[in-house]
Amino acid sequence: MPAELSWSGWGDPAQSSDLPAAVLELLRTGLGVTRATPAPAAIEELTLHAPRLPAAVARRLSATVGAAHAGDDHATRARHALGRSTLDLLALRAGAPLPAPDLVLTPGSHAEVMAILEICSDGRVAVVPFGGGTSVVGGVSPDAAGFAGWVVLDLARLDALHELDTESRLARLGPGLRGPDAEAQLGARGYTIGHFPQSFEYASLGGFAAARSSGQASAGYGRFDDLVVALRVAAPAGELALGRAPKSAAGPDLRQLVLGSEGAFGVITELTVQVRPVPELRIYDGWRLPDFAAGCAALRRLAQDGPVPTVLRLSDEAETAVGLAGPNAIGSGTATGCLAIAGYEGAGEEVRARRAGAAAVLQDAGGRIDPEAGAAWARERYRGPYLRDALLDAGALVETLETVTFWRAVPELYAAVTAALRDTLTAAGTPPIILCHVSHVYRAGASLYFTVACAQAQDPAAQWRAAKRMTGAAILAHGGSISHHHGIGRDHRDELARELGDLGVELLRSVKRTLDPSGILNPGILIAQ
Amino acid sequence: MPAELSWSGWGDPAQSSDLPAAVLELLRTGLGVTRATPAPAAIEELTLHAPRLPAAVARRLSATVGAAHAGDDHATRARHALGRSTLDLLALRAGAPLPAPDLVLTPGSHAEVMAILEICSDGRVAVVPFGGGTSVVGGVSPDAAGFAGWVVLDLARLDALHELDTESRLARLGPGLRGPDAEAQLGARGYTIGHFPQSFEYASLGGFAAARSSGQASAGYGRFDDLVVALRVAAPAGELALGRAPKSAAGPDLRQLVLGSEGAFGVITELTVQVRPVPELRIYDGWRLPDFAAGCAALRRLAQDGPVPTVLRLSDEAETAVGLAGPNAIGSGTATGCLAIAGYEGAGEEVRARRAGAAAVLQDAGGRIDPEAGAAWARERYRGPYLRDALLDAGALVETLETVTFWRAVPELYAAVTAALRDTLTAAGTPPIILCHVSHVYRAGASLYFTVACAQAQDPAAQWRAAKRMTGAAILAHGGSISHHHGIGRDHRDELARELGDLGVELLRSVKRTLDPSGILNPGILIAQ
Repeated sequence: MPAELSWSGWGDPAQSSDLPAAVLELLRTGLGVTRATPAPAAIEELTLHAPRLPAAVARRLSATVGAAHAGDDHATRARHALGRSTLDLLALRAGAPLPAPDLVLTPGSHAEVMAILEICSDGRVAVVPFGGGTSVVGGVSPDAAGFAGWVVLDLARLDALHELDTESRLARLGPGLRGPDAEAQLGARGYTIGHFPQSFEYASLGGFAAARSSGQASAGYGRFDDLVVALRVAAPAGELALGRAPKSAAGPDLRQLVLGSEGAFGVITELTVQVRPVPELRIYDGWRLPDFAAGCAALRRLAQDGPVPTVLRLSDEAETAVGLAGPNAIGSGTATGCLAIAGYEGAGEEVRARRAGAAAVLQDAGGRIDPEAGAAWARERYRGPYLRDALLDAGALVETLETVTFWRAVPELYAAVTAALRDTLTAAGTPPIILCHVSHVYRAGASLYFTVACAQAQDPAAQWRAAKRMTGAAILAHGGSISHHHGIGRDHRDELARELGDLGVELLRSVKRTLDPSGILNPGILIAQ
Repeated sequence: MPAELSWSGWGDPAQSSDLPAAVLELLRTGLGVTRATPAPAAIEELTLHAPRLPAAVARRLSATVGAAHAGDDHATRARHALGRSTLDLLALRAGAPLPAPDLVLTPGSHAEVMAILEICSDGRVAVVPFGGGTSVVGGVSPDAAGFAGWVVLDLARLDALHELDTESRLARLGPGLRGPDAEAQLGARGYTIGHFPQSFEYASLGGFAAARSSGQASAGYGRFDDLVVALRVAAPAGELALGRAPKSAAGPDLRQLVLGSEGAFGVITELTVQVRPVPELRIYDGWRLPDFAAGCAALRRLAQDGPVPTVLRLSDEAETAVGLAGPNAIGSGTATGCLAIAGYEGAGEEVRARRAGAAAVLQDAGGRIDPEAGAAWARERYRGPYLRDALLDAGALVETLETVTFWRAVPELYAAVTAALRDTLTAAGTPPIILCHVSHVYRAGASLYFTVACAQAQDPAAQWRAAKRMTGAAILAHGGSISHHHGIGRDHRDELARELGDLGVELLRSVKRTLDPSGILNPGILIAQ
């Protein structure tokens, strides 16, 4: 099991990366990075807003879970104050006092969650459901100002594998289970969920569902929202038990209102997800395609006519050159063309047939197989966020963002997002490098995942917010959705409002009013208060 | 193109079935059918409730579409008064005055729909969106009593193929297009939607979406709700434009609130659906499996581990014996075991490989291939409803109902529904025959589709309502959803309320209040007023 998530960056501090000298030199000469902004040395150095939850309410809340499961010490408050966006990491480095929860509760049951919601509704206390704390869109940072306090509901103890139905291939699980714990428990019985996003090692199943996560193997296993068949939800207005079958015609699919609700409508206290037998065989091939357009056409052909690899992604020329497909190779990139990863998981014979069929399509597009690149990708697949920490420490601004659209609009969206990032950051005096890959494919479309890096300006948070605002506008103007799998949180809520239109937002508000009449759940997340 | 839907039963009157003498004899001796209750000879014989829409409102409404597209004559009113459930057909035969719309409007644009909704909201006039009129759950029969009138919005003129994007494999279409028209227009350009429910020849695309239809080839092409990627919706409160990508993490998926809303939340005025190239090859095999349990296990294995046929269904012993897999063979059935249909559509080589793989699984389950049974199924696949008309005319009560659950619960649900139908109808003095097939399969579960026939009692509508009530209770008590693909309409709304629970229903109400504040859209459909 991985160590506790670093309070100041990503993952296990023991696994953090130092940047090779060549990369540091590249940052200086290529991007003009001059100032280092390392993270503080110790969590005690952070300054937090003073707690303000009335003592009587805090006592009632603590009593619901027991004192051992209620924490209000500095470190506990600090560890639940922020997610892991670049803006979050910059806030930890900025030295200004940080908004932080007053109290962190770790309930042990659905009933305890319901009791907490009742007390907080009565007392108008903001409640933030908290899984792995890995949001990169401000998903655990509420607008708590108008509330009597801010309580975090850490779901870590709701981590049971309640039931494995091998006949229906379904597992009923607690939302607090982290990816590796869920896979270890299911794996011991021969099953896997097959959901492996970059946040896999730290994010929770409840978070995957609440934020519509999509993993690296989604072409084969499906997105997490495709895998969820049933949900139990605790809301201030009561309980929802949704999902009696994989699909039905019993009215609108209300599961789809909870998936993507990011803790603003209710707290997922149990979820039932589809599982599969642990694959006999896993193979990840690298492929060198002539250029991004040829690569996109090949991915589209695979997605539409098959055979569909389990993992399928394609770096553009810039990302291929930098070698981000394997971050440890950064700076060593001399590769030309575009690197694709095509991975296959399943039964031996089936995997071999699928791999041969996909190879024919990739060869037909001018691809050459590069087995070492596939192995490198598999080795490094969860390393990206560590690299970001090191780059931030060295004084670079680095962040990722993503979008999705229909195939026909992919070239226009790619160009528009690239231009928005380049123009905004260049005008600010910090010309960026911009890398992109197709991260997920569907019959009808694909997602584009961008990584951007430049020198930090004097106020790097303001610098990034300006770039993000222009990029969001470009996404919406050119046919994209504001997020393919990072979610909305606080950071994308204005763009979500534009994407859905006034009546769409009013629909979300009406659902929230029904489930959460006092508006205490994750206020300011998903929709403005 | 098919003829206009018969006003008194199913389909094209020229294609109606006469029952063979052997079947009539079977009805008499086997089920005790004695009284014939033929449909009235002419539509003029129907008595309709008097219209009550204020003349001034009627004039304003007619002006929005032009007099040529507004009808209030007897035949037009009668043809839009009911769907095609057995209860609807019994009502047409009963002789009592029928509730009927006051006015049938056929708008030519989204803007005309919006104008009609505004006038009807102001005047508190019930509005029923109407596609093919093929609902079997009372979906076009509103609770209009508390309203100033009842207007039908016949969407037949919104029948354009607006756009075919061959790169993204998407078609933007009008909701009024009937299945065959859509397939003909797309087929001329080399594409198909691949959605072929039994109602295919008469139902509309808007209806498929609004009622979450699932076709006979859903194992291969997906359910209709899986195929819809974008929707334009006219609601009294405004317009919704939903869907910028196949999937996204931009909050809850609001498309899933419109899909399944059955005209109670808004009127779908455009929809974008996934299309595929017209298959090179179509093969439908029959397979004889030893029994229903062995057959279910084989279908589960195919659905979970593949290869998945495009069409996959399995009749139980009773349905196999009666020969309902091909209704024209009724009464000739001497077959034992259970008949499965496994169909394959696609490119030649791919179809051959998939067929060979599936054949190995079916053989492994003790199956013997029966090519003629596959051909008969394909020939007869849309004939079932004609047979129902003939049986009703002869004095039998015959209806279908369906449900869906996870694989583990399938045997229990099958037994419980069978027992509820048998016990209720036997206690009423009309012992039934009950036939069932697995109509749709998923990795996690399957649907069960029942056909029941018995002698008509003195009040056949009351007889069927009682049986249906007990069956609905059995479905909910044994883990099923109240409908897999027929939908909710009026007939299942009480069961839907139990399936979703009070808070789930309150969610639907809040969505309806937001989109349709005056409550004029399909009142009493989906949720009680």
